[in-house]
Amino acid sequence: MTGLPMVVSAANLPARVRIHEVGARDGLQNEKTTVPTEVKAEFVRRLADAGLTTIEATSFVHPKWVPQLADAEQLFPLIADLRGVHLPVLVPNERGLDRALSLSATRVAVFASATESFAKANLNRTVDEALAMFEPVLARAKAEGVHVRGYLSMCFGDPWEGEVPVPQVVRVCKALLDMGCDELSLGDTIGVATPGHVTALLTALEEAGIPAAAVGVHFHDTYGQALANTYAALEHGVTTIDASAGGLGGCPYAKSATGNLATEDLVWMLQGLGIDTGVDLGRLVATSAWMAGQLGRPSPSRTVRALSHKEQ
Amino acid sequence: MTGLPMVVSAANLPARVRIHEVGARDGLQNEKTTVPTEVKAEFVRRLADAGLTTIEATSFVHPKWVPQLADAEQLFPLIADLRGVHLPVLVPNERGLDRALSLSATRVAVFASATESFAKANLNRTVDEALAMFEPVLARAKAEGVHVRGYLSMCFGDPWEGEVPVPQVVRVCKALLDMGCDELSLGDTIGVATPGHVTALLTALEEAGIPAAAVGVHFHDTYGQALANTYAALEHGVTTIDASAGGLGGCPYAKSATGNLATEDLVWMLQGLGIDTGVDLGRLVATSAWMAGQLGRPSPSRTVRALSHKEQ
Repeated sequence: MTGLPMVVSAANLPARVRIHEVGARDGLQNEKTTVPTEVKAEFVRRLADAGLTTIEATSFVHPKWVPQLADAEQLFPLIADLRGVHLPVLVPNERGLDRALSLSATRVAVFASATESFAKANLNRTVDEALAMFEPVLARAKAEGVHVRGYLSMCFGDPWEGEVPVPQVVRVCKALLDMGCDELSLGDTIGVATPGHVTALLTALEEAGIPAAAVGVHFHDTYGQALANTYAALEHGVTTIDASAGGLGGCPYAKSATGNLATEDLVWMLQGLGIDTGVDLGRLVATSAWMAGQLGRPSPSRTVRALSHKEQ
Repeated sequence: MTGLPMVVSAANLPARVRIHEVGARDGLQNEKTTVPTEVKAEFVRRLADAGLTTIEATSFVHPKWVPQLADAEQLFPLIADLRGVHLPVLVPNERGLDRALSLSATRVAVFASATESFAKANLNRTVDEALAMFEPVLARAKAEGVHVRGYLSMCFGDPWEGEVPVPQVVRVCKALLDMGCDELSLGDTIGVATPGHVTALLTALEEAGIPAAAVGVHFHDTYGQALANTYAALEHGVTTIDASAGGLGGCPYAKSATGNLATEDLVWMLQGLGIDTGVDLGRLVATSAWMAGQLGRPSPSRTVRALSHKEQ
């Protein structure tokens, strides 16, 4: 084999998918090892070199909450010269937006919750109080011409509340779009979703006037469902898919590997389906194998393990 | 969460799926640790207790080739009293069938190849010579009223030949059914398939007069594709799915984790889709966690890791 899957298209799938790469932010913030700033910069550059065009770079959250990304101010200038690549950054509030704008970030993301329990645990606010907190962030971002992504966590299940009713998710999605979000990312934060649930949520959103083109999907592999859920989302017309290079953020040795979908496993499927991503899988695998070395442990991505094994 | 996914059905999927559990045979034969016979017997009993109704028990192959299953004669009588459970055994040739029949096995399986390279490597025969070897096996099995499953390996990709042409696979499938196989299992032995390829093969089989009801699918997670491929197969009407409890046969520490689809990850998806399997996921997870302890290493099944973590 050449290290690439045989290409056999399937009917009614998108011709092209945009991968929203979250490894440098969502991945690294969940790793135990804190990576030096220059390694992060090289990581982002290598991801761009592998053909990824949207690379979430870091988070302007208080270092107390996410010490792994405390170097956002130092990192961002090291990569801001990358051309042809979007480098969104997470901003939790107006203070975070200030920091991002001072470094001329052109894309930011806010992080909302579909459930009261997680809003309370993560933001110490109700769902609506969190939305209210984002309103001035959105208003200023829009005034500055900055693109805003709205993350919505716990869209399928919640560790405290269990099943999350679809209408509840639709309501918060509408609120985020109404206040100016340019796109949404529907998060299965605890990885419990299955394909029928994905289809049901996307259908309900469409019925509420939110087309598949306005939403990205963000699946976790806690129960191994991320790629099957992605396939269901593709069948529904979703063209933005979040993934984490090398499966960063999910420790392969942890009993509960709650990591993001690995970008390489996603690219393998998309390439096999003949869906264009612009990504060079070999370069991406080499980058993730290199980062696994930096972290001192194997990658949880099955494709990374299979292909880096081949090269040896 | 209750340890079960939220149930949201999807349109046009089967109401019920039969899981063909291969952990005790295909799983254990690929593990480095040789498991004592009485542990294997307890494993099979626990799998039956968890609700699995087809449990491939062992292989009557020469011990020189598969030393992990050299105790087939000792194991089979320890489990043959299980009621309501099919216990197929692999037989490579007439000698193997003799051994299986002498223990009153009522279901056997033969193992064919879709490619010349793998037929040569695994059976030291051409594809057609292997088929010829199975002919007397099938004839005798049918005469004895024994149900025969035909495994077909390398249905999607081959490590030496690369892409495997769909018509080549269809030809061998037809030959196996023509000589009396009651069902087929289409193997993605090296795990390279993607969902469009799965759909293309199933469509070609149907056009050749082989309906989805006559075939099972056997996916490997080498590149993380097994569950997405399974979902595509379900959409096509396949109702027999091979899986390995706890992902047995794929070492989580190996660089190349080429294991079978984990039964628990499959059951999570099927339960979420509202598809009946008869399996009690909690009992199955407990069984695989126990077997992981016997093997002295964590299970590669993400669902096993997530749920056994919860229980602690």
